Amino acid sequence: MEWISWVGYLAASLTTLSFLPQSIKVIATRNTQGISGVMYVMFVCGLVMWLIYGLLIDDMAVSMANLLTLVFALPILVMTFRRG
Amino acid sequence: MEWISWVGYLAASLTTLSFLPQSIKVIATRNTQGISGVMYVMFVCGLVMWLIYGLLIDDMAVSMANLLTLVFALPILVMTFRRG
Repeated sequence: MEWISWVGYLAASLTTLSFLPQSIKVIATRNTQGISGVMYVMFVCGLVMWLIYGLLIDDMAVSMANLLTLVFALPILVMTFRRG
Repeated sequence: MEWISWVGYLAASLTTLSFLPQSIKVIATRNTQGISGVMYVMFVCGLVMWLIYGLLIDDMAVSMANLLTLVFALPILVMTFRRG
């Protein structure tokens, strides 16, 4: 059914875009206290694997969603380790 | 190919389990400074949508991965709003 696909698109949009406010907050405040560096190491590695997986199975949705999430998550990772 | 599936499993394991160290850190330190509440509202809503989507398309992997991530992400959301 068509509407079921929209549940998936909404889910993907929410989980992907959720990292944008965190990215903006970290860049704006330079405050990474409370943020787990281990989380972002694992998460960014996972996103890279998802991106590779998307390319391997030739699935544009998987590749693009994870590439976008990577763009948001990478500054969080960098700032977390820069600020300690 | 079989090995391609393992790239996907590894990707899913990393992105799902990455929220465990953040959850532990927030529960242990009670420090949620720097963490974006907006991110976790969006992220938890997205996970619930993914869970519903997994159930709708009858995909156990999608349902279970997102249910597990929800178990890790929910305490982060609660603590972020409890501590302000």
